[in-house]
Amino acid sequence: MPVFDGATPGSAAPPYQTVAIVGVGLIGGSIGKTLLARNLARHVIGIGRRQASLDEAEAAGTVTSTTTELEQGVADADVVVVASPVANIVEHVVRAASACPTVALITDAGSTKVDIVTAAEAQLPPGNRFIGSHPLAGGERRGPAAAKANLFAGRTVVVTPTAATNPTALVDARRFWSLLGAEVVQLTPEEHDRALAITSHLPHLIAGGLAAALPQEYRPLAASGFRDTTRTAAGDAELWVQILMSNRENVLAGIDAFDAVIHTAREALQQGDADTLRQLLSKGKDSRDALGN
Amino acid sequence: MPVFDGATPGSAAPPYQTVAIVGVGLIGGSIGKTLLARNLARHVIGIGRRQASLDEAEAAGTVTSTTTELEQGVADADVVVVASPVANIVEHVVRAASACPTVALITDAGSTKVDIVTAAEAQLPPGNRFIGSHPLAGGERRGPAAAKANLFAGRTVVVTPTAATNPTALVDARRFWSLLGAEVVQLTPEEHDRALAITSHLPHLIAGGLAAALPQEYRPLAASGFRDTTRTAAGDAELWVQILMSNRENVLAGIDAFDAVIHTAREALQQGDADTLRQLLSKGKDSRDALGN
Repeated sequence: MPVFDGATPGSAAPPYQTVAIVGVGLIGGSIGKTLLARNLARHVIGIGRRQASLDEAEAAGTVTSTTTELEQGVADADVVVVASPVANIVEHVVRAASACPTVALITDAGSTKVDIVTAAEAQLPPGNRFIGSHPLAGGERRGPAAAKANLFAGRTVVVTPTAATNPTALVDARRFWSLLGAEVVQLTPEEHDRALAITSHLPHLIAGGLAAALPQEYRPLAASGFRDTTRTAAGDAELWVQILMSNRENVLAGIDAFDAVIHTAREALQQGDADTLRQLLSKGKDSRDALGN
Repeated sequence: MPVFDGATPGSAAPPYQTVAIVGVGLIGGSIGKTLLARNLARHVIGIGRRQASLDEAEAAGTVTSTTTELEQGVADADVVVVASPVANIVEHVVRAASACPTVALITDAGSTKVDIVTAAEAQLPPGNRFIGSHPLAGGERRGPAAAKANLFAGRTVVVTPTAATNPTALVDARRFWSLLGAEVVQLTPEEHDRALAITSHLPHLIAGGLAAALPQEYRPLAASGFRDTTRTAAGDAELWVQILMSNRENVLAGIDAFDAVIHTAREALQQGDADTLRQLLSKGKDSRDALGN
């Protein structure tokens, strides 16, 4: 898959010599796999806590080498991507910044941004090259074995610069995600968290609640509608607790807004008010149709 | 696709001479297409209000002939399947019963059963051969062009006999849906409506509410989680209003049960109670995992 027009595949020097990825699960693994498949990096170093996971990541072709020593793994990196669970990201970013080359881009892949960016910026030295990112890709499958070289193709990645962000880090992060095939969108951490509460965190909570409310004896009667509506509930519970807790004010506001809609529907249903119900479902249909598949 | 072992495809006499289908949309059309693909019926008559829709159904290979005259269309039928919108089913069943052979099986494909079966039985003569059915198949796509010959393969069809149901109608309905490839489950209309409120009607309302609550400017940030969770909201609003209204007591109870779960989650989130949240999401994950894809 030639990245540069006219280049013979494999002959052009890749844009990155070394990319270090902290946390080689579905997202980290897919970043590595895409970097290698597109000839974007010569070395992709997978960094993790457990050697067994790292071996799995290497066997899956997502990285070219691995280490459990974060500082050692980032020492020669042009780019460090921290794709750890939300609760570990700040620590990993700060440790990476202390050990990687000062010119390296440091970014993350966390599902929330205000908590992470605020805490990281408070601990990093001025002029640091960290910027928050959130690739809107993934799904309920986990681990490097699920990693795909086209996970980011056409998907949105949000980058979240602040007033403190080094402008070159913003340029480099946009370029990095673009090279992986993503559409880059730029938001403040606050805008990101407000939006994602509605587009991701609230739906996950609702899907989980709906799945949890299903009596076991009704399982044989759960067809495609139920399966679609609750699909995301199969995601890792602990990771989602971290995400929800990290964005709780916005998620609480989202619950209340959704509650108001469901309350309207409940009233309409109780009073046999078909018009109100039709209006609500039509609005939902228009909104959903606008998203496509 | 031979239905009877040892038969040369096309040589065996099909089990049905004539099947009449009232309402040739996705469900009715898929029934017709399956009957023809599996050599289960010689004639499949599509009955509808608008000739244009019937022409579309015939062009899509779902029926062998069409008519806008219900009574005429069912006159020679061995089986009549009423696959109309929920609000029209009772009228179509009663009219079919008055015009079809007395030995014909009459069933429907409506998403609710208590309203339909109660009203139909009140209007039909004793000894009639109507029994309610609900194929748990379909999706948000509509119309005969979306019809598939394998729509029911491995899917559940609920048949809902009552004390008044003619036992031969039950046997015949079970056989009919089995021949289409479905797994047949037998429930009372009341059991069916209680279960489907939770497995289908409530999820649809929630998906619609969630889609309706999405601000337009957040659409580019709605990724696979949001898309899955709201997919069913793309269904026809009017058809769903009929379904929700027809099962409103059970749906109201479902809303309240779901509300209680979300309220628990809201409290946990507000109080930073990660354990309760983790418990809820784990329960949801276990429940969803048990469903498979």
